[in-house]
Amino acid sequence: MKSYFDELQLYLDKGMAFHSALNLYEWDMETQAPKMCQENTSKVIGILSDGYFRYYINVEVEKIIKKLENKKYYEKMNCMEQGIIKELKKMQNQLGNIPLEEYKKFSELCATASNVWARSKEKNEYALFAPTLEMMIEYKKKFMKYRGIKGKNVYSNLLYDYEPGFGEEELDLFFEKIKTEIIPLVKTIIEKHSVLNQKYEQNQSKTNKIPREFQYEIEKQRKFCRYLASYIGFDSNKGVISESAHPFTTSLHNHDVRITNHFNEKYPESAIFSVIHETGHALYEMNIKDEYSQTLLGEGTSMGMHESQSRFWENMIGKKEAFWKPLYPKLQETFPAAFNHISLNEFIKEINQVHAGFIRTEADELTYSLHILIRYEIEKEIFHNEKISMEQLEKMWNEKYQEYLGILPKNASEGILQDIHWACGDFGYFPSYAIGSAIAAQIYVHIKNVMPVEEYLESGNLLPIREYLKEHIHQYGKLKTTKELLMEMMGEEFNPNYYIDYLKEKYSELYL
Amino acid sequence: MKSYFDELQLYLDKGMAFHSALNLYEWDMETQAPKMCQENTSKVIGILSDGYFRYYINVEVEKIIKKLENKKYYEKMNCMEQGIIKELKKMQNQLGNIPLEEYKKFSELCATASNVWARSKEKNEYALFAPTLEMMIEYKKKFMKYRGIKGKNVYSNLLYDYEPGFGEEELDLFFEKIKTEIIPLVKTIIEKHSVLNQKYEQNQSKTNKIPREFQYEIEKQRKFCRYLASYIGFDSNKGVISESAHPFTTSLHNHDVRITNHFNEKYPESAIFSVIHETGHALYEMNIKDEYSQTLLGEGTSMGMHESQSRFWENMIGKKEAFWKPLYPKLQETFPAAFNHISLNEFIKEINQVHAGFIRTEADELTYSLHILIRYEIEKEIFHNEKISMEQLEKMWNEKYQEYLGILPKNASEGILQDIHWACGDFGYFPSYAIGSAIAAQIYVHIKNVMPVEEYLESGNLLPIREYLKEHIHQYGKLKTTKELLMEMMGEEFNPNYYIDYLKEKYSELYL
Repeated sequence: MKSYFDELQLYLDKGMAFHSALNLYEWDMETQAPKMCQENTSKVIGILSDGYFRYYINVEVEKIIKKLENKKYYEKMNCMEQGIIKELKKMQNQLGNIPLEEYKKFSELCATASNVWARSKEKNEYALFAPTLEMMIEYKKKFMKYRGIKGKNVYSNLLYDYEPGFGEEELDLFFEKIKTEIIPLVKTIIEKHSVLNQKYEQNQSKTNKIPREFQYEIEKQRKFCRYLASYIGFDSNKGVISESAHPFTTSLHNHDVRITNHFNEKYPESAIFSVIHETGHALYEMNIKDEYSQTLLGEGTSMGMHESQSRFWENMIGKKEAFWKPLYPKLQETFPAAFNHISLNEFIKEINQVHAGFIRTEADELTYSLHILIRYEIEKEIFHNEKISMEQLEKMWNEKYQEYLGILPKNASEGILQDIHWACGDFGYFPSYAIGSAIAAQIYVHIKNVMPVEEYLESGNLLPIREYLKEHIHQYGKLKTTKELLMEMMGEEFNPNYYIDYLKEKYSELYL
Repeated sequence: MKSYFDELQLYLDKGMAFHSALNLYEWDMETQAPKMCQENTSKVIGILSDGYFRYYINVEVEKIIKKLENKKYYEKMNCMEQGIIKELKKMQNQLGNIPLEEYKKFSELCATASNVWARSKEKNEYALFAPTLEMMIEYKKKFMKYRGIKGKNVYSNLLYDYEPGFGEEELDLFFEKIKTEIIPLVKTIIEKHSVLNQKYEQNQSKTNKIPREFQYEIEKQRKFCRYLASYIGFDSNKGVISESAHPFTTSLHNHDVRITNHFNEKYPESAIFSVIHETGHALYEMNIKDEYSQTLLGEGTSMGMHESQSRFWENMIGKKEAFWKPLYPKLQETFPAAFNHISLNEFIKEINQVHAGFIRTEADELTYSLHILIRYEIEKEIFHNEKISMEQLEKMWNEKYQEYLGILPKNASEGILQDIHWACGDFGYFPSYAIGSAIAAQIYVHIKNVMPVEEYLESGNLLPIREYLKEHIHQYGKLKTTKELLMEMMGEEFNPNYYIDYLKEKYSELYL
């Protein structure tokens, strides 16, 4: 006899196929599609997105879910099925009450908004983008009303969409610690070393040792980065590595996970730490259990948890001397003229330099969370204050950079226009970057307690670390929440103190 | 007021999106997807294929078509809309009466058949593949019955599916000419030059001049082939060039047409003529009018016409001295040690060598149609003879190679197992390759009459040729049939004599 869940499965399978096709299109557009394909291809993507939405959110599916929620059926489902129902309800809750016409208009706005943003950024004119931003905010507020969420609760619910369990209350506490503990540390370091406003790309004096006068051949970087990815655990039988303007990770399923990298002829560190970061994301997706893959549970449980995995490898592991001990000779071999005269210890100091800059994506580990703090405070203001003007937002942005990082953006491009997120309607997304860093630090401290991390790194044996993450986090996909995973792995809740202590200890040692 | 055609458009758009997504998956699987993705990805492709089928063939669409066929509506439609209805009816006619369950089983058979074929070929055991081949043939016969087609008409209708207007009657005449005129020529050349059974890949003595002892660096071949594609007219703003095991062309729409190439370190000619061939296909797809792209008219009108475009560039143009005159110095520059001592005239002789081989895809221009003749005669036998055994097929295969080409396959892999087509259920497909060659020759003779082809080629000005093909063939997509296009362009029907004369003239000059 067919169960109600079997009936649901037909919709789920189709939604899954659409989702996968959309991810493939995204990958294709970023990595290889020809310049002029945009207009025609957008039509296809629009139809697939619309279909994806309709397979998960429709009257039939709602009916089946209602039946399955009846206790006598609910208890017969296994935990995977129950998890899938939970995810489906989350989607319905987020999108189900939005009138289709309005959602379509919003999607159309999204499709043009990133172009408007890009043009505005290129021309350095915030006024070009401001009206679009305002509409974006209006839509977001309206959509929350459809979900029955109003007033002070709006922003927390936007936050929950990306990071369940991390609303304003939790984040206020978290960012307060950043303010009281990290800002003073950054200020002290900056005063002592006067590394003010050193933009990664432009400032030649940022690093003292790694030479900037010669070209780091892309083909050699490419080879080294491929080696690095596989060294960390990227399995090329289940994944693809390509190139795009901005590095990213996407997954078609657990046996087809894809990352990109981007190369800069002057800054080999850029591609090196990008590939470590994206490999961290990729390991998460590759290690999800086969049975969860291609279901609504088949991806990382939250943005923050995903970011914790990428940052764990990029910063906690990838910037450690022990990690580089077996690898550094290979880097020297790849670019002997550049690295032969730099000792491993000097290299480690260089890749851990602190600088107060404008660009979040180029920020070092210590100042990174200050960039997020600023965005968090502005987003709060946006959703607390019904009548905020777009001009006020820019003013706030500049004031906060001055206050927290001691630097004033020269223009909108290095100020309020630097990130694409708001142009995509992603409000409440930024904090998960900081939460990810904090979780990474907490996991790092924990793992150091359960295994000899240093020893493993020095001997180039990354398997135990990878397996531990797979066993305690990756395999579950979305079956367990971030909070559940942390509690089960460490017997302790999310605790930002680990992050604060980690940063203070590491950077005091390096700088003070 | 919404017209009936507008109602139909909703289905058409969705079918188009699925078609495009399927093409993207095909491209991805052939060019970059990781080895282990197969099982999960097949699930997605299965769902998309099923959806594609259902959008075009369903009760609602049938109803709308019935209404639109009413004279009072039909006459109000423009010719594009009428063309779309025609294509839709063709699909419905081909697939509409097949019970869904049976079609699914057939699709499943197809999905495994190519693997069985590949294993069978690898192991050189025809007996492994024979039962699958038999089932394939049974399905094909049964499906024709569902379409109400029986007996002597079955094969012609299979032929029509790929090449409307070219059934057994037309092809019998065509192949008769090949038999009486080309086979004797091949025999004479072979006797005179004893170039028997020289397999492209293995026989080192095939070419006399181009050295085989050194490696033609892939990266250099890649660069030269990219140059060649763009020289002929491939527009990289509307297309992608990548690599795969077997070169092919696919199109997502007219602004995103993709070709692949395959490189052999010893035989640079392999990639050179592949890229010219695929560029010929690509130009067709890129030049389809914007309004037809992403509709059922948005691809080349028939397999044969498509093949005529690839072979026109590959053989009629690409193997001419005038074409190579401006290009050959660049090839010499790319591989000076190999080509500097070979004159242009010697190079042209080499790329036009004739050899009797077993492998269709490696055949030269003159013997190519004999390979097709053999397959045509065998397919005829399959569909005329209710009770044919799989053993008989192999026997026929070997006898015919002996008779027409004077060579006997050593084993099944270089015999009946060499082509994948039957494993995909593609019966009636092969003849379109030969028709393509014949059309290409006819077009070539025509174009030489309307413009100074030689002069254009020698001065590297390919635009007039490209534009002529665009204007008279490419732009129309499927709006006009092959026969209509030929008649409108040349004022003359398809006439295989041009092909016969072209071959006789060219090869007598080269060899006799």
